[in-house]
Amino acid sequence: MSTDEKTTADADSDGVHDPIAALATPYAQSAVAVIRASGARVIELIAPLFSRPEKLRDAPRYTIMHGRFQDRDGRTIDEVLVNVFRAPHSYTGEDSVEINSHGSLPVIERILETLYSSGFRPAEPGEFTLRAFLTGKLDLTRAEAVNEIIRARSDRARSLAMNRLGGSIERAIDSVKGRLVDILARVEIQLDYPEEDTGEVVIPPEVIDETIVRLESLVATYRIGRVYQEGVRVAIAGRTNAGKSSLFNLFVREDRSIVSDVPGTTRDYIEATTIIDGVPVRLFDTAGLRVSEDTIETEGVRRSESILGAADLVVYVVDGIEGVVADDERRVEQIADRVPCVVAWNKIDLVDARVCPAGYIGISAETGENVEALRAAIATRITPERGVADGRPVIDSVRQKDLIERALAALRETKVGVDAGVPVDAVALDLQEAIRALGEITGEVTTDDILDAMFSGFCVGK
Amino acid sequence: MSTDEKTTADADSDGVHDPIAALATPYAQSAVAVIRASGARVIELIAPLFSRPEKLRDAPRYTIMHGRFQDRDGRTIDEVLVNVFRAPHSYTGEDSVEINSHGSLPVIERILETLYSSGFRPAEPGEFTLRAFLTGKLDLTRAEAVNEIIRARSDRARSLAMNRLGGSIERAIDSVKGRLVDILARVEIQLDYPEEDTGEVVIPPEVIDETIVRLESLVATYRIGRVYQEGVRVAIAGRTNAGKSSLFNLFVREDRSIVSDVPGTTRDYIEATTIIDGVPVRLFDTAGLRVSEDTIETEGVRRSESILGAADLVVYVVDGIEGVVADDERRVEQIADRVPCVVAWNKIDLVDARVCPAGYIGISAETGENVEALRAAIATRITPERGVADGRPVIDSVRQKDLIERALAALRETKVGVDAGVPVDAVALDLQEAIRALGEITGEVTTDDILDAMFSGFCVGK
Repeated sequence: MSTDEKTTADADSDGVHDPIAALATPYAQSAVAVIRASGARVIELIAPLFSRPEKLRDAPRYTIMHGRFQDRDGRTIDEVLVNVFRAPHSYTGEDSVEINSHGSLPVIERILETLYSSGFRPAEPGEFTLRAFLTGKLDLTRAEAVNEIIRARSDRARSLAMNRLGGSIERAIDSVKGRLVDILARVEIQLDYPEEDTGEVVIPPEVIDETIVRLESLVATYRIGRVYQEGVRVAIAGRTNAGKSSLFNLFVREDRSIVSDVPGTTRDYIEATTIIDGVPVRLFDTAGLRVSEDTIETEGVRRSESILGAADLVVYVVDGIEGVVADDERRVEQIADRVPCVVAWNKIDLVDARVCPAGYIGISAETGENVEALRAAIATRITPERGVADGRPVIDSVRQKDLIERALAALRETKVGVDAGVPVDAVALDLQEAIRALGEITGEVTTDDILDAMFSGFCVGK
Repeated sequence: MSTDEKTTADADSDGVHDPIAALATPYAQSAVAVIRASGARVIELIAPLFSRPEKLRDAPRYTIMHGRFQDRDGRTIDEVLVNVFRAPHSYTGEDSVEINSHGSLPVIERILETLYSSGFRPAEPGEFTLRAFLTGKLDLTRAEAVNEIIRARSDRARSLAMNRLGGSIERAIDSVKGRLVDILARVEIQLDYPEEDTGEVVIPPEVIDETIVRLESLVATYRIGRVYQEGVRVAIAGRTNAGKSSLFNLFVREDRSIVSDVPGTTRDYIEATTIIDGVPVRLFDTAGLRVSEDTIETEGVRRSESILGAADLVVYVVDGIEGVVADDERRVEQIADRVPCVVAWNKIDLVDARVCPAGYIGISAETGENVEALRAAIATRITPERGVADGRPVIDSVRQKDLIERALAALRETKVGVDAGVPVDAVALDLQEAIRALGEITGEVTTDDILDAMFSGFCVGK
């Protein structure tokens, strides 16, 4: 009658998982913290740590209990609210408990310590959502959408992810796959019972064509999803004293980098996040690009070169008082070879400033004059195609994109075979491959490796 | 029958307050965010923003509802759980709702925007707790304890604050006050009905003495509470290249400040938090204290001087290779005049290092050798008296301390009057003042100004 302790996330034969717990809110001081626990016997395990154990054991699903959370010696850690969820009516599909404590770092630490010494183990990143998938609460496209909502950096990204959480990708894939499965079923009947006169089964080429078009159109949305979700990297470059830090500060509207008259003040790149026309922008203020004997500054220059190399767009700032010098020309040419580049002519507010030449956008990073024109020039270069209809699925997962491309490759092979009159048993293999790839997207077909790779990118506590 | 919109936190005549809402968890990406709403008609106001409005309107207290939170045009913002609280069974004592959404920044922003355009206003810091006080759910000592738990920076501080949240201060004050009120009542009966022969009322001096002792002992705990709650400031000082940054990094065990061989690398002070022997320590790495023509470095030196001035303890690091130079001697003398100072002799791991003189603690910030001895020397200088019995109230609020001192001053006057045989009607005034001061501690007597000052130090959302 002994029971082996389980230490992995593997499901028991009856689909019940070992108890896990994690902080679900950020580890920082605030009014409230939420600690989430899920798995087998979770309510039974937490009851002795709660001031009203019997009430907790008897609590119906979706109820809230007020009481004290205690350590194993009965000492009160904090006054808490405990939210009770009963399988299958929970996020994970298992019995679950959420502890709402004060958002106090020592409280969070003590509660977690107490849980971890009372039968719980720390949850892996994304493990609650993994369990929701394993218990059939979510397919993999919705599971990915959970993470995409959390990581959304603009309202447009949130809205696209919410759409996916609602099942738009799952439905699109299932619909395409359904038609392929119908065709394959008829082919396989014929292959299994050749003696029966079911007539020659033809794989209808127009259905394959239409499926290819639908999948191509879906995979094309990946770039759009990426831009809104991941954002773009914009680097501000230019010679020392051109006003890069002032421009950076103007964009992020807070005083993050030191602005000073000493050449080389910005010793390292500084990064901030802002939103330009709905697109999240990681903005980088690079160090002054002058050569220096100072080891730290040289390191800064090296780093800023690597930032420029990875940028999606560079804003090159020219000092409007000094005008374009040979170094500027060389730099802009080098940058524009690799990445889109917008050139700004700074300090137009100063009386000494020269006239802004054509092709440059004259601005004053100091007064903000004409900076909107610069912002607009950046926006036109970074926003993806508009006009994606509301509710139309937009893909944001490289995993989904790769699988659709695998399905597409198999369907194109199918098409070639059908057109060339290859026997259906050979063509059926390509069709099976396409269906398998589509099944992996929703998780109908999956492996532990795929799941591990997918969920490791999630937050702990989700 | 028109109803004026209320825009302040003032209670209506029936004790119902205007609807407020705020994020109760940190504004950062995470699995879960909690948005809290409380006040009049809160469930009625949120129902049209929820996918199951009728269910929400009918929800019993302490229940959780799953659904979609929508904007005013019915577009889904996120899938959420809504926790329903009904007056008076809530934190604030009012009808309240907590929205558990994904911990996504755009989700948080959209939900708050939607609430703020649907009859809610942003809650002031501490306003939920203020309401709990106004509806009689908490006295002021417990309300302060809520904030103290959240701000606790060590488990000992949390435990002391939890004790106060449990009412230890409230009970101590009420018990002392109760005895004074009894005495005053008898005095006042005699003053009001002098014709009745109630016998000469004597204010028992031993009761006043005992009360003074109890309050003195309570107020003496303030220093202990402070150290565990606020922590202490420890600054690392020393000449350029003595190894300040290495020592700083060793203490905080992460690479926050740049350690380099270029003199003057640490341009500004850098702060980190660590815990030494249960006491939260704000550790400051000061700039190299050399005089420089460089404007930024001069600014750094100025700031590090101000850090040293505000420190509770200074760790002065001497370069064990260079030995103690005149500049070190002058500095240590200056520092030790104002603040406790521990002197470390660094680089004992190097062959060139001189022998560590008596009174210095020889260490290697590079290898960590003997740093535990330095840590112990710091600990003995920063930890307050031990031996505060578990459960004994420890005060952590300057407001409470000042009021106890006011009560003590009045009681000492009472004592003088009693001893000098002053008529009871004169002594009664001092007694009243002591009782009034004690009543302010728990909030039995209070004013809007006192409440504003107190709650403005709270988190938003609490």
